[in-house]
Amino acid sequence: MTFAEDLKLIEDYQKEIITLGRISGLLNWDTQTFMPKKAHEERADQLSYMSSLIHEKMVDPRFCEAVNRLKDSDGLNSRQKRIVQILFKEISKSKKLPKEFVAELAKERSLSFNAWQKAREEMDADIFLPRLAKMVELKKKEIEYRGYEGHPYNVFIDDYEEGMTVSKLDPVFEKLKKGLIELLGKIKESDNYKNQKKVLAVSGFDKDKQIEFTNEIAKSLGLDSEFSRLDFSEHPFSTRLGLKDARITTNVRDDPMFSIGSTIHETGHALYELGMPDEENYTFLGESPSYGMHESQSRFWENMIGLGKPFWKHFFPKAVNLFSIEDNIDLWHKEINHVFPHYIRIESDEVHYCLHIILRYELEKGLMDGSITVDNVAEKWNEKMKEYFGLDVRNAKEGFMQDVHWSEGYFGYFPTYALGTIYAAQIYNRLLDEMEDAENQIAEGNFEKIREWLKNRIHKYGSMMMADDIITGVCGKGLDADDFLDYLNKKYGELYGFSPRDN
Amino acid sequence: MTFAEDLKLIEDYQKEIITLGRISGLLNWDTQTFMPKKAHEERADQLSYMSSLIHEKMVDPRFCEAVNRLKDSDGLNSRQKRIVQILFKEISKSKKLPKEFVAELAKERSLSFNAWQKAREEMDADIFLPRLAKMVELKKKEIEYRGYEGHPYNVFIDDYEEGMTVSKLDPVFEKLKKGLIELLGKIKESDNYKNQKKVLAVSGFDKDKQIEFTNEIAKSLGLDSEFSRLDFSEHPFSTRLGLKDARITTNVRDDPMFSIGSTIHETGHALYELGMPDEENYTFLGESPSYGMHESQSRFWENMIGLGKPFWKHFFPKAVNLFSIEDNIDLWHKEINHVFPHYIRIESDEVHYCLHIILRYELEKGLMDGSITVDNVAEKWNEKMKEYFGLDVRNAKEGFMQDVHWSEGYFGYFPTYALGTIYAAQIYNRLLDEMEDAENQIAEGNFEKIREWLKNRIHKYGSMMMADDIITGVCGKGLDADDFLDYLNKKYGELYGFSPRDN
Repeated sequence: MTFAEDLKLIEDYQKEIITLGRISGLLNWDTQTFMPKKAHEERADQLSYMSSLIHEKMVDPRFCEAVNRLKDSDGLNSRQKRIVQILFKEISKSKKLPKEFVAELAKERSLSFNAWQKAREEMDADIFLPRLAKMVELKKKEIEYRGYEGHPYNVFIDDYEEGMTVSKLDPVFEKLKKGLIELLGKIKESDNYKNQKKVLAVSGFDKDKQIEFTNEIAKSLGLDSEFSRLDFSEHPFSTRLGLKDARITTNVRDDPMFSIGSTIHETGHALYELGMPDEENYTFLGESPSYGMHESQSRFWENMIGLGKPFWKHFFPKAVNLFSIEDNIDLWHKEINHVFPHYIRIESDEVHYCLHIILRYELEKGLMDGSITVDNVAEKWNEKMKEYFGLDVRNAKEGFMQDVHWSEGYFGYFPTYALGTIYAAQIYNRLLDEMEDAENQIAEGNFEKIREWLKNRIHKYGSMMMADDIITGVCGKGLDADDFLDYLNKKYGELYGFSPRDN
Repeated sequence: MTFAEDLKLIEDYQKEIITLGRISGLLNWDTQTFMPKKAHEERADQLSYMSSLIHEKMVDPRFCEAVNRLKDSDGLNSRQKRIVQILFKEISKSKKLPKEFVAELAKERSLSFNAWQKAREEMDADIFLPRLAKMVELKKKEIEYRGYEGHPYNVFIDDYEEGMTVSKLDPVFEKLKKGLIELLGKIKESDNYKNQKKVLAVSGFDKDKQIEFTNEIAKSLGLDSEFSRLDFSEHPFSTRLGLKDARITTNVRDDPMFSIGSTIHETGHALYELGMPDEENYTFLGESPSYGMHESQSRFWENMIGLGKPFWKHFFPKAVNLFSIEDNIDLWHKEINHVFPHYIRIESDEVHYCLHIILRYELEKGLMDGSITVDNVAEKWNEKMKEYFGLDVRNAKEGFMQDVHWSEGYFGYFPTYALGTIYAAQIYNRLLDEMEDAENQIAEGNFEKIREWLKNRIHKYGSMMMADDIITGVCGKGLDADDFLDYLNKKYGELYGFSPRDN
């Protein structure tokens, strides 16, 4: 094979692997949105089969040999070098897993997801626990196959956030935990907290009107129905079935901020996907370099924009009109930012949110190193909820069964939510520096310039650079929780009436 | 390879091929229901890739050699023999088509479907014609690759109805055409025809209520939402994504019988799929032996049941209630069976319906043998519409662009609609012989026994037998248009007030 033939070959293989991945994406999307219930076992067969096909392609000797040859060649430009670097890493990972194991894991994922759903419906953790035990067993087996340095959990952290490890995360999360607990202390001591109660943002939000409202918001933010869809699923998610096919889901509760927040969040993900470079549609560069980077985009829109006063200057009059609530934007803004300990991560306020993540991070570490088992994971969960939130968990649906992730074996995913939150604060700070009238634009419901700014500063790179390099490029420094803690202290100091912390 | 190893190997390959087919099925379903518009090119890549994977599996030497060895072995039981026979035929077919051609055809199919949709939206046949020309060119190329005996169109007729040929179909369709034209003559001469006008079944049917009503009908007929879905698409269709996942679509027009008829029709298809033998879920026996056989099930429910008086004894009171129409079931039954020449096949009455098919059959024959070209197909279409229906076609959407089939290259498919219609009349006759109270059951909205009868007499065989053998088993004779012509003469003789034909 010549150099040019090798390049062509890896181009073809990437296209095949990406196509298979997108087809699996449709199977997954359908599983969670429209599939008839009884089809779940057949669907599990289908997903498992697709995973084995992707795995087969990744470890195909022709492909691996071409990547190896290219890795050692001198003729690559920087783009090609980055592609080969990513492919080499992915192949090395895949090669360590036997094909049968990959198929077993994919099939178990579907069965376990289904058991999770059923267990929640029937409020019976025993339906889910055996499957979770099997899933943890498989994931520990995966760690064995793949090998690790330092902590076994590092294997999965790195899957979602390249280069990240327990020893790097522990201090960041300790600092964050400390800062959040301090801030929560100040909030809880304030009179505003003691007297807080929801008046506007609490009930009477017709569900059809919520849907109408969230659709309008998503459209305003730039979610174009020619390239995307907004559907419903138990747990909101986003998935990309192509450069021109970004799908998100939402769900509606009594609290209108659930559907609004999750729709804005998933829209942020979709805008990132739709902003990927056209010319990398069928290469491994045409995607986010990390889940934390991806989450920075959803958090940026959900928190920095969607929970801010400027955003509501534009949307509150529409909400008043649609839901017949009192026309008091200050009260509304206070209420949608109420700090209040909640059992459920995705219904949590900004301040508590990362504590939910840190709780999960600590449990996942334990599950992977064996210091926690599936037998006592509920108990440990509940202990930490008591310790960090002061809450007594009443049932597994409000406890360890609240998230879809474990049912699908996505250990290592949760930390990226906190990373994304931290990145988002850094990015927003930078936006305010670079675009003087950003908040005016938001207040006018004009999001195009901000979208373009994100596209030019972040999206267009795909994974040409690693997350930390992109953040450094935009913000002048890498991951740093201070921006987020400062933002929270300033915002919640104003809302609850105390001075921001000193740095 | 031992005999047992060969059997295991063909079992595994069948499961893989069927799984790939079902995944393609989901891609197709999504394309026609929910996919964002701009994703069509990427979707075309995905469908094309799946087709090439299926093709690769079908012609994989290990598989082909195992099938060849088994074909020549003595140890097969009748079930295994039938499987090997079907596989051998499919493999021989696939082997004649180069992989690149299969991928090109699949990709063209998506592009052409999209052009068809766009051409209809913009009322501009020129958007579709170049793609249709390309499709016809590819299909003629396919005929060359595959070779044929007799008429080149035989290749595609046999794809949908095994064993059927132009020389067998010509006389059946000639007889049918003659019988229908005679009957239409009698109808059109009758006073009832001259004075007919619609009063009830004509307008004011709220679309949401139509949806509610069709959903209720589908459910009553036995479409269980745990195993199926009912969605919307431009052209109603049914597809099976698994033994426990049968999906149908419908659409709503001003005429309520469009949504009602097409929903019942597609439900008939879905019930057939859901009635397939469990134990053949992942073998080639677990599907219909022919498209005509499949269509017999949809026509059975749509025409024999859904257009009959007993059915409306049960459902008319609900319609009266839902749509606030006059409570006159006789008038309703007359009106929904009005014979009236219509441009659109799927809005056609039972008597004209097969003339639509014969028109397409004649044009497809011509397109495939070159006596008609894409340049003059619209003109030929319009000439025949004038000759058989007395209608002047006003635009391509009402003319040759009305059906989805050609855009997807499904030449040879149309004749099966007429075959199914003929079979359905034969099957219904037999049901009335065997189940005395069948029409009472229908009138009570109780369809379970009839469903069970169909399952036991037809569905459960899958493709263990060929269509003609199944029909012979049920009816005591094979394909025979007389049952259908007798049924029409009796029914429309009563409705229009003349004596049925003599045989």
